[in-house]
Amino acid sequence: MKLKRSGRLVDMTEYLLRHPHQVISLSYFSERYESAKSSISEDLTIIKESFETQEIGRLQTQAGATGGVCYMPSMGCLEAERLLVRLQGQMTKKDRLLPGGYLYMTDILGKPEYVNAIGRLIASVFINEKLDAVMTMETKGIPLAYAVATQCSVPVVVVRRSSKVTEGSTVSINYISGSSKRIQTMVLPRRSLKEHARVLIVDDFMKAGGTMKGMMNLIKEFGAEVAGMAVLVEKKDERPKLVDHYVSLLKLSILEQQDDLTIENGNVSEWLAMHHDPHAMKK
Amino acid sequence: MKLKRSGRLVDMTEYLLRHPHQVISLSYFSERYESAKSSISEDLTIIKESFETQEIGRLQTQAGATGGVCYMPSMGCLEAERLLVRLQGQMTKKDRLLPGGYLYMTDILGKPEYVNAIGRLIASVFINEKLDAVMTMETKGIPLAYAVATQCSVPVVVVRRSSKVTEGSTVSINYISGSSKRIQTMVLPRRSLKEHARVLIVDDFMKAGGTMKGMMNLIKEFGAEVAGMAVLVEKKDERPKLVDHYVSLLKLSILEQQDDLTIENGNVSEWLAMHHDPHAMKK
Repeated sequence: MKLKRSGRLVDMTEYLLRHPHQVISLSYFSERYESAKSSISEDLTIIKESFETQEIGRLQTQAGATGGVCYMPSMGCLEAERLLVRLQGQMTKKDRLLPGGYLYMTDILGKPEYVNAIGRLIASVFINEKLDAVMTMETKGIPLAYAVATQCSVPVVVVRRSSKVTEGSTVSINYISGSSKRIQTMVLPRRSLKEHARVLIVDDFMKAGGTMKGMMNLIKEFGAEVAGMAVLVEKKDERPKLVDHYVSLLKLSILEQQDDLTIENGNVSEWLAMHHDPHAMKK
Repeated sequence: MKLKRSGRLVDMTEYLLRHPHQVISLSYFSERYESAKSSISEDLTIIKESFETQEIGRLQTQAGATGGVCYMPSMGCLEAERLLVRLQGQMTKKDRLLPGGYLYMTDILGKPEYVNAIGRLIASVFINEKLDAVMTMETKGIPLAYAVATQCSVPVVVVRRSSKVTEGSTVSINYISGSSKRIQTMVLPRRSLKEHARVLIVDDFMKAGGTMKGMMNLIKEFGAEVAGMAVLVEKKDERPKLVDHYVSLLKLSILEQQDDLTIENGNVSEWLAMHHDPHAMKK
């Protein structure tokens, strides 16, 4: 349909937000709105400026005959800090402590508003990585994994504790839970991961990192690669950690004597800061 | 920050899309952009027109001093039909048949693109219902439930097959699986549902409807109400069905002799059509 600039801006914004990390050709928009490519380019400049001012992501434009535009969602440092403060406020409550050093987060992880914001934050950290899939372990990590995958436009792969009839043939490995030292099993459908795929592991809670380590091994078993690891809450004083180089949004400390807890920021801010100094990336 | 109309349109579109089913006051936008309410009203008229032309949802504006605007996401009939055709194309493959009359959908449900579109479609059907929560049974229904809940701005409640240490005290009921006739258990944390809450049940697959029926009983156990039921794929020739008045997107028939399957549209189009004729709602 033929649209004026104002209508085009609204529709293009909606379209770009719903197609993150996908290159959309100028011709597509030009045909969609029956408008000259030069007008589309001007529209995109306005959108790019607005996205950058509001820190909701980058708009990368590629010039030339095959030129296109790609929206890469991200979260600004200020919004990230505000989100972490809100999560801390929600989580720092005595009655959230559960037996075994766990934290009750079901209500927080039940709210799409939080889950989607956490997903945008984690996706921001890996904005420069080429990803092919997001992996998580059932059950609590699933919503977070989808929130991240939505922003990165890649599929989600859910690891299970036992094989299900609805998943066809599977690959399974045994791993040792880092904190309980018990042998456990994780299972993934054979068709779910390709060789050389670059996989981002996402989970809600990490103690010693046994589950993370297990997922790393499972990824290797498929001939795929770990592109990164991110966790919402890590337990601070759990030593030794079985994994490193992971992103954590929050850190939980349990004060056993007082039966109380504290939550502080994880290392996510440092990871976000690396984007502003690309030379610090691979230190 | 002070913004011109073009910048305001981009930012307001993004803001509205990210805050569905929430009333945002004109004052909020007026302060956010340091612009007169009359200008904001004109912006909203442009956005409303664009959303309606593109069939991506309604923009309801409330006049007066306490005036505000509310974005209600929905999917147009044409886009819905296209989505169903694409899903049918993906699913109608012989090697998707699994033992026990199940359908392999893990790859399709792994793609946020499909999951989020399905979520928008289901949310469209219930656009006029007051909802307080979306409920699903672990594990496969979880991504669909979050996709619906995101569009409706309500929390997700995940029913489990056994109680977990990380969820505190729980309520559990027994139910009879409609197709296998076995007694099974479903469990929900006590703090997860309030009395009188209006709950939309969402699941990926339905045979006789035993799980759906179980969730209905669980909702009653909490003194809450069933606001609706929606399922991605229902098995066509499974009789008798234990539930009725549910929305199904697709219907699976298995041709046992030929070891083959067919997928046809469910009843979702009829439900969507009811919005255009509100008198037909309660027939």
